[in-house]
Amino acid sequence: MATIQDVAKHAQVGVGTVSRVLSGKGYVKAETRQKIQASIEELNYTPNEMARNLFFQKSGIVAVIVPEVAHPFFAQFVNAAEMVLCEKGYQTMICNTYYEQNYEQRYLEMLKRRRVDGIIFGAHTVLDISQYENIHLPIVALDRDLGESIPCVSVDHRAGGRMAAEELIRSGCRKVLQFVGSKRGTEVSTPANERHDVFEETMKKHGIPCRSVCAKWPTADISYYQTTAARLLEDYPDIDGIFATDLMSMAVLQAAMLHRKRLPEDLKLITYDGTNSIALTYPQITAVVQPIERLANEAVQLVVDLIDGKSIENKKVELQVVLRPGSTTMGS
Amino acid sequence: MATIQDVAKHAQVGVGTVSRVLSGKGYVKAETRQKIQASIEELNYTPNEMARNLFFQKSGIVAVIVPEVAHPFFAQFVNAAEMVLCEKGYQTMICNTYYEQNYEQRYLEMLKRRRVDGIIFGAHTVLDISQYENIHLPIVALDRDLGESIPCVSVDHRAGGRMAAEELIRSGCRKVLQFVGSKRGTEVSTPANERHDVFEETMKKHGIPCRSVCAKWPTADISYYQTTAARLLEDYPDIDGIFATDLMSMAVLQAAMLHRKRLPEDLKLITYDGTNSIALTYPQITAVVQPIERLANEAVQLVVDLIDGKSIENKKVELQVVLRPGSTTMGS
Repeated sequence: MATIQDVAKHAQVGVGTVSRVLSGKGYVKAETRQKIQASIEELNYTPNEMARNLFFQKSGIVAVIVPEVAHPFFAQFVNAAEMVLCEKGYQTMICNTYYEQNYEQRYLEMLKRRRVDGIIFGAHTVLDISQYENIHLPIVALDRDLGESIPCVSVDHRAGGRMAAEELIRSGCRKVLQFVGSKRGTEVSTPANERHDVFEETMKKHGIPCRSVCAKWPTADISYYQTTAARLLEDYPDIDGIFATDLMSMAVLQAAMLHRKRLPEDLKLITYDGTNSIALTYPQITAVVQPIERLANEAVQLVVDLIDGKSIENKKVELQVVLRPGSTTMGS
Repeated sequence: MATIQDVAKHAQVGVGTVSRVLSGKGYVKAETRQKIQASIEELNYTPNEMARNLFFQKSGIVAVIVPEVAHPFFAQFVNAAEMVLCEKGYQTMICNTYYEQNYEQRYLEMLKRRRVDGIIFGAHTVLDISQYENIHLPIVALDRDLGESIPCVSVDHRAGGRMAAEELIRSGCRKVLQFVGSKRGTEVSTPANERHDVFEETMKKHGIPCRSVCAKWPTADISYYQTTAARLLEDYPDIDGIFATDLMSMAVLQAAMLHRKRLPEDLKLITYDGTNSIALTYPQITAVVQPIERLANEAVQLVVDLIDGKSIENKKVELQVVLRPGSTTMGS
């Protein structure tokens, strides 16, 4: 394979001159430029991307850090982000943190060594926020508060929590339960938690008892969901309304059917996220749907703007959720 | 941030000497080595990975090319591959081809420019095999025949097809239907298609009429599955056994429930792949399960072996599938 040295030798110029032609920076005589161009074609030279990136101090890579790409929400998010990044000339590196702080730490160390041009950060382990601010790389957060200086993309989770609560109330629920991501108050700061506060508040306002149960989140561990859902129906037989994320909702639906509960008559169920395959259950579960592809678009646009040195005016991008009526509630 | 030049200046040596110490190649006096080490620590110098990789002509990156990471099979595969690659010191780049030949082409062009150390290739668009052989990079194929020289990892799809057929036969099916990936004979060469041939043969051997219906594959487009499944039940009301992949199986189950069909009494259903969330349906669908995580492990091991210059003896790695009994058949 031809190298830049081969091109320089063939065109009888210095390597620096070829480099200036390739980068389009610095003056090179038209005649010399043509000679180099001819040599490039004759030798079928393809610029080594690594060398070129080293020259520009760019890698052309954006890292997307998520807890687990096997989780449907993150699979869809990464999928969409990759497509938009590709259109904008970037390649996508994925990093699964598996909810482990040391994985998150390791990725951050790797990223500090400037392998990537920017980071979209959607992991949810607990790390000191200052660690992100010290990276000195363009970072955009997905659903995570990483301090004032780092833009965050999310949906309006407060509206989402209210929507879910009101749909269960309209459906006539008397005693409800919601799954919350982790022991509240100890978890990382994410706007996603706000939906749980609003859900609780809304129920309280209507005098409806609301229990919040901690569940591992997010995980793609199916048997965990099944065990948790089955135990729940045994522990709280009088609950008549449940608010959960997609995989847990599927598990609740399965457990309810096994318990011969009728939905929505005996139990109302509303799910959060609205990832692709949740639409394939029977009965269809009423869902608060996040616009995952648009979240990805916004995150990519922001990180690319930061890479391009633009200043970001609006550091909190909040998209709208929508209620998709199913057959597990009867309010809408 | 300190550079290699800063380190050299601080240690009062040449850049080449620092470089030799960093790379561990070439002789450097112990005393000089210690001086450089001290300067590195004092200046808190982190080697620029791009520079170091350029030095070694390595990027430390493996590309995983799939049709669509939002599809559950590929989400799980990429998830597992990333984990193992990370353990082996590689980072994972993902490339979605979206079943578009020009996307596949573009990624191959990009990869030829030596951005990555190796490729795990699981896309399924039609490209001339010689294009892969010309890449001159370590490549491992997932479920795709890319010629003699390129190792391929897959499950034993013939056994999978037989398992599915025999389970439907044991369940008493009289007239069955299977979804096949695309118009057969025109698609890319993938071992996955073999299951359809064996399924058909097995049915024929038992005198059971078998219809093969073309469906887009693989796609994460849910409404496509719903429309196709609904039309199918209308077009072929006398079919009593269906063999499909996970998302289509979920759609068939949903459509069957809407048509008030009882499973397994009126309709038997067996699914292929056995991705995570398929276990959450009610009734649970009998599944031929691919060991997706093990497929990823094998693919990663092979590509790393190739990167390390090892020769691969066994170029066809074939893993076993297992039958997971559900409530949509009654054979096992």
